Amino acid sequence: MNRQELISKIKQKKSFLCVGLDTDIKKIPAHLLELEDPIFEFNKKIIDATKDLCVAYKPNIAFYESMGVSGWNALQKTLDYISNDIFTIADAKRGDIGNTSNMYARTFFENMNFDAVTVVPYMGEDSVRPFLEFENKWAIVLALTSNKGGLDFQKIEDKSGKKLFKQVLETSQTWGTVANMMYVVGATRAEQLSEIREIIPNHFLLVPGVGAQGGNLKDVAKYGMNSDCGLLVNSSRGIIYAGDGSDFAEKARIEAQKLQQEMAAILIEAGL
Amino acid sequence: MNRQELISKIKQKKSFLCVGLDTDIKKIPAHLLELEDPIFEFNKKIIDATKDLCVAYKPNIAFYESMGVSGWNALQKTLDYISNDIFTIADAKRGDIGNTSNMYARTFFENMNFDAVTVVPYMGEDSVRPFLEFENKWAIVLALTSNKGGLDFQKIEDKSGKKLFKQVLETSQTWGTVANMMYVVGATRAEQLSEIREIIPNHFLLVPGVGAQGGNLKDVAKYGMNSDCGLLVNSSRGIIYAGDGSDFAEKARIEAQKLQQEMAAILIEAGL
Repeated sequence: MNRQELISKIKQKKSFLCVGLDTDIKKIPAHLLELEDPIFEFNKKIIDATKDLCVAYKPNIAFYESMGVSGWNALQKTLDYISNDIFTIADAKRGDIGNTSNMYARTFFENMNFDAVTVVPYMGEDSVRPFLEFENKWAIVLALTSNKGGLDFQKIEDKSGKKLFKQVLETSQTWGTVANMMYVVGATRAEQLSEIREIIPNHFLLVPGVGAQGGNLKDVAKYGMNSDCGLLVNSSRGIIYAGDGSDFAEKARIEAQKLQQEMAAILIEAGL
Repeated sequence: MNRQELISKIKQKKSFLCVGLDTDIKKIPAHLLELEDPIFEFNKKIIDATKDLCVAYKPNIAFYESMGVSGWNALQKTLDYISNDIFTIADAKRGDIGNTSNMYARTFFENMNFDAVTVVPYMGEDSVRPFLEFENKWAIVLALTSNKGGLDFQKIEDKSGKKLFKQVLETSQTWGTVANMMYVVGATRAEQLSEIREIIPNHFLLVPGVGAQGGNLKDVAKYGMNSDCGLLVNSSRGIIYAGDGSDFAEKARIEAQKLQQEMAAILIEAGL
């Protein structure tokens, strides 16, 4: 999916919601376990219940990889089930020397037909570039993560006082364009997004960690939105595990709808 | 495998060689392509030809993942084929928030029975710790990589002049011990290893990028070896693609043997 199509979908659906498919066999409703492929059946129901409310799905690859061959099969079936007008992100956090990154890129872009892959920048340019060489495909580079360990290295300042994640934002801009690169930016403090917007005003940001409570969604939009929206805000557990009975999909829809309605108000107010 | 067993194997085999199983369907001898599982057949022959000469095998996970289900099957069969007295490293470069890293750890340690996984430190402590919670299993943390992009961020200096990869070495030491953590250290300039040894005198280092030519092996040992050896030196393509005919395994053995003999001389000279 290209940038223009993504922006159109956001405007049309009045949503910049990304639903995280962190599907864990230990957490899905018990009645699904009797089925042949419980993971896919769960995802299918979640997709059916939310596809008009979100613009993107983001399976976390670890959850599928940990199940071996059956996990990869469930992942492939899930991807095939998502219609092509919804953006798909492999949350894989890959990155290696060029030849190896190319293998990972082919895995997710060609074999599985994902639109985007999350990529770790620690190994620098030649580890990220292979993900930028596929038409209408995207690398989503980790910049600032919202976990506790994100403080360990990402905020180390260089001699001029510039934090590592800002170095990543600045340096990596020359590797790709606003049409094939996004950034993962955690929103523990939404005001940080305005600092980030000073460096990358036009790129899309993938913002994880906004729960079903949606508490800081307004702040994320206030500090992070640009004239194309420029945001994908992810919610995983808050949506997909909203219920644990036979009505889990309806419960998931209710939570997704809360976020979508809040997003619609934000987009309308911004004239988008 | 625990640290003492690894050290014993190094002394017994007079080798600190790790053979990288970067097995690419496009590069293996044509006659194997007729077999049901060419990737596994190739690995099997390489293992048979080199298992007395090396102490570790390191499959690069991207190569298997890019082949989908058949790749994962070949990887699992390869792991099962390697005897338990050889150290096995999943070169996966994983790392994510705690819950997700735990999934990756279980995948490689429990499902596939690897001894070690390479891990990216960008997301900090809680992304690495889950790999340190399995008995006799290891996290091998990326510190300094030898690719060109390794210069982009790993050598950025903080206000006190300390480079990022040294911050990683220092900070991460508190997360694990010499018995469950190693470091990936590229050897573009072997003298850097002595700076690294000042920070981590006792940890094992996984050193990639020493080719069949073995040119800098002596320097790597000179600057990087400690009283327990403390080195695993990897060679991938230089060994596994030494030949491309029906005698590829014999050719691989010859290259592995050259490195092993050089290592034997180094170990004997060091009294190990």
